[in-house]
Amino acid sequence: MRIGILTSGGDCPGLNAVIRGAVLNGIKSHDYEFVGFRDGWRGVKESDVIDLPRQAVRGIAKQGGTILGTSRTNAFEGENGGAENIARNLEQLGVDALIAIGGEGTLAGAKRLCDEGIRIVGVPKTIDNDLDATDYTFGFDTANQIAVEAIDRLRTTGESHHRCMVAEVMGRHVGWIALHSGMASGAHAILIPEQSTSMDQICEWVNEANERGRAPLVVVAEGFVPEGDSEAFSTRGLDTFGRPRLGGIGELLAPMIEERTGIETRATVLGHIQRGGVPSAFDRVLATRLGMAAVDSVANEAWGTMVALHGTHINRVPLRAALNNLKRVPQNRYEEAKLLFG
Amino acid sequence: MRIGILTSGGDCPGLNAVIRGAVLNGIKSHDYEFVGFRDGWRGVKESDVIDLPRQAVRGIAKQGGTILGTSRTNAFEGENGGAENIARNLEQLGVDALIAIGGEGTLAGAKRLCDEGIRIVGVPKTIDNDLDATDYTFGFDTANQIAVEAIDRLRTTGESHHRCMVAEVMGRHVGWIALHSGMASGAHAILIPEQSTSMDQICEWVNEANERGRAPLVVVAEGFVPEGDSEAFSTRGLDTFGRPRLGGIGELLAPMIEERTGIETRATVLGHIQRGGVPSAFDRVLATRLGMAAVDSVANEAWGTMVALHGTHINRVPLRAALNNLKRVPQNRYEEAKLLFG
Amino acid sequence: MRIGILTSGGDCPGLNAVIRGAVLNGIKSHDYEFVGFRDGWRGVKESDVIDLPRQAVRGIAKQGGTILGTSRTNAFEGENGGAENIARNLEQLGVDALIAIGGEGTLAGAKRLCDEGIRIVGVPKTIDNDLDATDYTFGFDTANQIAVEAIDRLRTTGESHHRCMVAEVMGRHVGWIALHSGMASGAHAILIPEQSTSMDQICEWVNEANERGRAPLVVVAEGFVPEGDSEAFSTRGLDTFGRPRLGGIGELLAPMIEERTGIETRATVLGHIQRGGVPSAFDRVLATRLGMAAVDSVANEAWGTMVALHGTHINRVPLRAALNNLKRVPQNRYEEAKLLFG
Amino acid sequence: MRIGILTSGGDCPGLNAVIRGAVLNGIKSHDYEFVGFRDGWRGVKESDVIDLPRQAVRGIAKQGGTILGTSRTNAFEGENGGAENIARNLEQLGVDALIAIGGEGTLAGAKRLCDEGIRIVGVPKTIDNDLDATDYTFGFDTANQIAVEAIDRLRTTGESHHRCMVAEVMGRHVGWIALHSGMASGAHAILIPEQSTSMDQICEWVNEANERGRAPLVVVAEGFVPEGDSEAFSTRGLDTFGRPRLGGIGELLAPMIEERTGIETRATVLGHIQRGGVPSAFDRVLATRLGMAAVDSVANEAWGTMVALHGTHINRVPLRAALNNLKRVPQNRYEEAKLLFG
Repeated sequence: MRIGILTSGGDCPGLNAVIRGAVLNGIKSHDYEFVGFRDGWRGVKESDVIDLPRQAVRGIAKQGGTILGTSRTNAFEGENGGAENIARNLEQLGVDALIAIGGEGTLAGAKRLCDEGIRIVGVPKTIDNDLDATDYTFGFDTANQIAVEAIDRLRTTGESHHRCMVAEVMGRHVGWIALHSGMASGAHAILIPEQSTSMDQICEWVNEANERGRAPLVVVAEGFVPEGDSEAFSTRGLDTFGRPRLGGIGELLAPMIEERTGIETRATVLGHIQRGGVPSAFDRVLATRLGMAAVDSVANEAWGTMVALHGTHINRVPLRAALNNLKRVPQNRYEEAKLLFG
Repeated sequence: MRIGILTSGGDCPGLNAVIRGAVLNGIKSHDYEFVGFRDGWRGVKESDVIDLPRQAVRGIAKQGGTILGTSRTNAFEGENGGAENIARNLEQLGVDALIAIGGEGTLAGAKRLCDEGIRIVGVPKTIDNDLDATDYTFGFDTANQIAVEAIDRLRTTGESHHRCMVAEVMGRHVGWIALHSGMASGAHAILIPEQSTSMDQICEWVNEANERGRAPLVVVAEGFVPEGDSEAFSTRGLDTFGRPRLGGIGELLAPMIEERTGIETRATVLGHIQRGGVPSAFDRVLATRLGMAAVDSVANEAWGTMVALHGTHINRVPLRAALNNLKRVPQNRYEEAKLLFG
Repeated sequence: MRIGILTSGGDCPGLNAVIRGAVLNGIKSHDYEFVGFRDGWRGVKESDVIDLPRQAVRGIAKQGGTILGTSRTNAFEGENGGAENIARNLEQLGVDALIAIGGEGTLAGAKRLCDEGIRIVGVPKTIDNDLDATDYTFGFDTANQIAVEAIDRLRTTGESHHRCMVAEVMGRHVGWIALHSGMASGAHAILIPEQSTSMDQICEWVNEANERGRAPLVVVAEGFVPEGDSEAFSTRGLDTFGRPRLGGIGELLAPMIEERTGIETRATVLGHIQRGGVPSAFDRVLATRLGMAAVDSVANEAWGTMVALHGTHINRVPLRAALNNLKRVPQNRYEEAKLLFG
Repeated sequence: MRIGILTSGGDCPGLNAVIRGAVLNGIKSHDYEFVGFRDGWRGVKESDVIDLPRQAVRGIAKQGGTILGTSRTNAFEGENGGAENIARNLEQLGVDALIAIGGEGTLAGAKRLCDEGIRIVGVPKTIDNDLDATDYTFGFDTANQIAVEAIDRLRTTGESHHRCMVAEVMGRHVGWIALHSGMASGAHAILIPEQSTSMDQICEWVNEANERGRAPLVVVAEGFVPEGDSEAFSTRGLDTFGRPRLGGIGELLAPMIEERTGIETRATVLGHIQRGGVPSAFDRVLATRLGMAAVDSVANEAWGTMVALHGTHINRVPLRAALNNLKRVPQNRYEEAKLLFG
């Protein structure tokens, strides 16, 4: 059997460990051959492949990014897109099955391809941890660890200058990174897209911390929008070059907090450093196991499934299970964290 | 309500985060007061306490060790030991309930005290992750991360000198740290107490890696014993000062591997660095949640229970559930890892 | 003798190690007493002091920030400012001499106070390394290390997505952090305030790297201005809240590079994380030695001097030596780095 | 011109950055070609070479170890050794000049080869920092940083258990790593080969720290020998396998300190982790500059010289300058550190 692997969407620490886990398990347990499609679906649509013999995955578990490259190319759009074209490409390349490593969009595409007869299994990838049907996705732990190390550094600056520090972390639709990195770093307020907190409430937490002699720390997910302040944020959107503004909510919040509380406030946007570089031990183990399990899914012809973490077990779930819902921070987890605010 | 907290047994990254989580939740949700017993059961038996107001737990979630101190003192031994003495001390101090943070011995003691009428709840602590009834214990993730960072460093030395490197990690009775850190660092052999591998098998893996041009990496848990070689290891045990030998299995294995394979081999014993210092983000979140949940157990008068991680949930389980079995690395997890050996 | 210590200006990793080095050496070698002025010159002007016995400096060498607090308060401005007021305050507090830890402004103030009769010695502090008369200032090494670790992470994202990554580092007037962190991380272009490079040249380097199959990496100091493009940058300055724009040059460069080269480009502003948190080993040693030497300067009544690093030696130089010139990246150091560009 | 590069002796963080700096500068400034000899002098004697085009050094500045491999092979011993054989090999391979990266032995060999007519320049390499004629050698800063991070971790264990912790760091002949890592981590005693301290003095420092409520921290260089206790240490030497004992002084000191002070004492031998893995920012910059400068030495036909760091400058010094003396920790640096002991 000859298996094609692709990585799609934003890069994520652990992608290479998944690839390595799949290739090693495939070669050793099943005598499979592997090829890698370059830059996600683009490589599939354009038959842009590289061989993946054992030596190609040597030592890559600890490398950030993906040796295959990635892109946001959609499997169905453009002239080479769609199940029919892809099926023909795979046949011409002698590729019998696909392992698609990607986020919700990729997995939705994989499901559709599977429905149209392509033999495919998925490995869920989202640094934001917003995929249902798995306890955690790889990359999330690394992102948290990086965020926490950075926020630990911000705190000493805040304390020395008696400032409020605002740290903006990733999370466009969900607040998992903000919740975990904020909880781990002792934030006095954690602001997430799932909870539309008011500026009054935010400033109350900031003031409380300040009154106890602390330098207030606010951890905010990039997708957070304050309650009832939509107008103040209408300036968000495109920058003078017509591109989405870098920075965003953190830089908007900081002056608003400063104005209302009178406490000097500074924002830091952690940005891309959260998603690159050496994966954490947790993510390397998880990603390796997922890659190995994905090959077993192929061996079991479990097409249309993806591998998932439940407790300490790697299980197989239908792709549709991951696509039903965005995994949001539930109310009880936010209430739990909130007890530590202020 | 006035609650006493104690930390017992070996130190572990996250202990302070448990203490902080308990104190903050207790003060904010329940208006409890807290005292800390110094050095585990010693403090309980000798009524050696310090107050734990909110400011005492300020900023400690990221500190390694325990602000309360710890010891291996047994709750029942000595003249001040036993339920009766302890109950009297608690009454004199006005302490209504205990939160005991410790390993199997501590939790067994807690259960016995609870059976004799003392109001007590437990928080499981073992850096080795060998406690049943919880997916992971706090500190284990940090230990793995430290081990992996150290082993990553060893690999470049091994590769430059074409040596086999043996890394000895913690794990006297179970191989969880060896399994995870070995898997994360791409070890060519992982040796754990649960699996009595022969020197022939070990050297086969080492030779396989060497023949592929790699510098072989062996990760071994301190409690591992090679199959059928008990005699060669009879020199283990006490050193010339009558104390347990430092080093141990790694330093014994290295020359045996070198002799049999002809490959220059060096051992490194990671030792105490695995259990100290700043906890990982994962452990800070887990430990904080466990501390908060332990206070809720007190509020619910769930005496004789401990808090545990199941998937992403913190649950309450009877103390006896943790005491039934040592959580060993199961056969299927070792088989999974083994596919990556050689 | 009773000595007052103050830390002034932006925080910097190593400030606490200086304080600890001074206090320990002062107590042990000279039997001095110490007090700390809170928040720099503010504390001096308002007689806001704390005692600094030995236990106050326990374990602080590895803490980021400053236990004394800091501010940008000027020694001469306001109603309590000026040598006369300060001299009176010091007399009332029984403070015989001052150790002022700060940047060019602080040292200039210290010199002026010294000229007016106050017994004062200086310790140079600038994370940007822009002070003349010393090889390096403490904090600079830590800032570089943090920047390099972050940039290492950015690179894997750049490579996975075939993007150009722009990393903006500190350096308003000089490019030392950009030079060193760019050289250490293998940047394809380093842009510093001392060198007014054109967009054409920048894009040539970016294109060269891209043509060799690399993801181009541009490291830019915040104070860099491209040659002949002043108009394109006239939008810099204040944001909609009337405060200096966060972000800045990196976010402006990225779309300009993308537009001219056609290579997708992303900017990351490292910001405050570069100046906080645990100091590097290098900075802890340097800062400790400087603190110890500053006390020896007091003992030698070397008023109006500051301590400085020359090679591996800590020497004493007149304060005016540090104030003559901003230490800019010299042409030959930039030429050396430039050989690695493109 | 075609230049051969070799790395010899123990591995050291920064070797790859030297190689990269040399190759990039050589190609860009001088249009040189490069080959690498595998495993140090072994490759030279056996004409075992690999080409070093630009892409071979891509991204290696941050990799630990050496891509060329290393060994302790002597240039003059064995049947292929000696200047005559080496000259013939170089001629056959068309190699016009050599860049030898190594420690005292390698540089002594290089000098001898140069005296016999081989065109050679040196780059000093010693993780112990014991080479004269240069302020610092690359790798030393990384070793210190790793040691300090590990010792920071040990301290929390020491404090939680009220133990004395003994950390053994590298330094067979000189105490630079012990001096710097001990100073940076706030050690209560630093023991180095240059200073033959008595057990009485050591225990006095340990007791002093203990009496102030600290967990005593002793940092000891592997080559330290206590004054007047040579007999107690006569058991050192070979282990039961006839090889040098791992561990060594730290493990011997710990029980002696415990016995004399009554304070529970634990030793940790940091070992090989100090010399592997990602180099620090400081070492990457230094190593890159040294590699670049070595090529300029070739271009200037400065045969028989090595490159060296003086302050912030890279200078050229005769090889013999490095060979005159082992650079020991001078008395005044030890006295300075000693003020912080106890």
